Amino acid sequence: MQFLDTYKDLFLDYLSANKFDKAPHNLYQPVDYILELGGKRIRPLLLLMAADIAGDKAVDALSAAMSVEVFHNFTLLHDDIMDEAPLRRGKATVHEKYDTNTAILSGDVMMISAYRFLENYEPKIAIKLLKIFNKMAIEVCEGQQMDMDFETREDVSIPEYFDMITYKTSVLIGAAIQMGATIGGLDDQSANHLYHYGKNIGIAFQMQDDMLDTFGEPKVGKQPGGDIIQNKKTYLYLKTLQLVSDSEKEELLVLYNTRPTDSSNKVARVREIMKSAHVELHSEEVKNEYKNLAFSHLDAVEMTDMQINQFRSFGEFLLRRKV
Amino acid sequence: MQFLDTYKDLFLDYLSANKFDKAPHNLYQPVDYILELGGKRIRPLLLLMAADIAGDKAVDALSAAMSVEVFHNFTLLHDDIMDEAPLRRGKATVHEKYDTNTAILSGDVMMISAYRFLENYEPKIAIKLLKIFNKMAIEVCEGQQMDMDFETREDVSIPEYFDMITYKTSVLIGAAIQMGATIGGLDDQSANHLYHYGKNIGIAFQMQDDMLDTFGEPKVGKQPGGDIIQNKKTYLYLKTLQLVSDSEKEELLVLYNTRPTDSSNKVARVREIMKSAHVELHSEEVKNEYKNLAFSHLDAVEMTDMQINQFRSFGEFLLRRKV
Repeated sequence: MQFLDTYKDLFLDYLSANKFDKAPHNLYQPVDYILELGGKRIRPLLLLMAADIAGDKAVDALSAAMSVEVFHNFTLLHDDIMDEAPLRRGKATVHEKYDTNTAILSGDVMMISAYRFLENYEPKIAIKLLKIFNKMAIEVCEGQQMDMDFETREDVSIPEYFDMITYKTSVLIGAAIQMGATIGGLDDQSANHLYHYGKNIGIAFQMQDDMLDTFGEPKVGKQPGGDIIQNKKTYLYLKTLQLVSDSEKEELLVLYNTRPTDSSNKVARVREIMKSAHVELHSEEVKNEYKNLAFSHLDAVEMTDMQINQFRSFGEFLLRRKV
Repeated sequence: MQFLDTYKDLFLDYLSANKFDKAPHNLYQPVDYILELGGKRIRPLLLLMAADIAGDKAVDALSAAMSVEVFHNFTLLHDDIMDEAPLRRGKATVHEKYDTNTAILSGDVMMISAYRFLENYEPKIAIKLLKIFNKMAIEVCEGQQMDMDFETREDVSIPEYFDMITYKTSVLIGAAIQMGATIGGLDDQSANHLYHYGKNIGIAFQMQDDMLDTFGEPKVGKQPGGDIIQNKKTYLYLKTLQLVSDSEKEELLVLYNTRPTDSSNKVARVREIMKSAHVELHSEEVKNEYKNLAFSHLDAVEMTDMQINQFRSFGEFLLRRKV
């Protein structure tokens, strides 16, 4: 989708024009560092797209787009401390490059700055954006807590897993689209349907991402089977536990309690068990359910068919990648 | 001042009616824990007082009062991690009682919750509160960074010290009063003068607090000479360096590079040097300058003399304690 690049360019120009680059430098340098590490910029891009489709307001939406991108990077920064992650996008994480205290405080100032980018709207719009943003941000923290809680729990259910990824990753996709549509002048009810469209697209995308992580071709900068190595309780893992024999279940549980230095045998064996359970078929099915759920919300949006089709095309594009 | 207790009671009732107490419990229990540790509740109390004086709006101001108290406790929570502090108000700090990851994430959700309490106002007021709050919150982070930077710097100047305490502690006092006055319906310019009144009262109070810490009577739960033990570069320390002979200056610098297990000799000797420099007189003088500056802003506020006198009495009350 060519036009997505236009939004990305628009956003990247705004980002470089809005560097933090000021005193105290020990506070703000890490902020510019993480914001310049790159990434797909999917959240600001979606926000700009929604504002553009809804009311030709892409440029007006830049400040809010910055808000969601700064917030997203704040969560990465604090999550990396909690996960003791050494690398982010192939570069040193902030707590590694600087130190943990810096990473805490620079993250804090990023979160506040995210709110500051919401000031640039007239009061009626600003308060709507504030409410959407607050609800989302609280849920993202709750999702991160659930994810941490799951690490030490053996009894995570599949519905709990979906709650967790919904909060941790998908509500931000939904909120970005809802905020863009609100700036574009769409009515609240339609904007809320677009939130649910985005949220469910986000869940489907997460499932696709999990499948690629476990069954996809190894990619540059990404460890193949990373979720398995880290014993992540993904849908693939939880569903496989339901599908396999008691002895394979036992084996899987044992494997998920190890962290061998050379993980290749572990990854291979977990993949084998998952494949024997045909869990990919289940996963693909559930992914499509969320995709359909997302699209059903588009039917309730007060927009022209042409406008709605742009959201539909975007969803198709994002969820096209096959395992 | 009897009436201050009324505001405190009003606030404490609201606080207990608004417990976080929900799932995920590992996220929210630490929030209730730190909010229930107590404290003078000076910031919410000031916000309620300002709203009451300005427009009889103390009850309407409760949500904003909660916002500043939750924000203040969020800063304590994250600062305690950075300072590796074991105790807060005589009880275990959150990162000690739970763990560091919990303290980071529970702090994050507190900061977002602080913003959520601003939603409960009509858009025109809410956006004003958001702007006051954002500016203050950014400055508090900058002040904390300056404070951390000062720890390893030998060349901190007195103006830099005042910038630091202004940002780290005083802008929140000013913002609380400005927010209360705004909710009370005061015009923006007058509310801004009240901000400067509060900010300068805050600086004067900090100086008084520093004097009490170094020269006051030992109090329950507070280590006497704590600032000296922690090598805090207070006004007393920085000014003494300017006033004393080269040999005493050298001695003071050496003492401020030590952390003896038994600090009584160090505290006694630093106090002696400070007393020989009559630094208390300078400090008292500067405290009074900030107090007068604070009161001068009251003259510019569009209020009746009776209203203004209530702010004046409060300032006199707060700054009455003598070394």
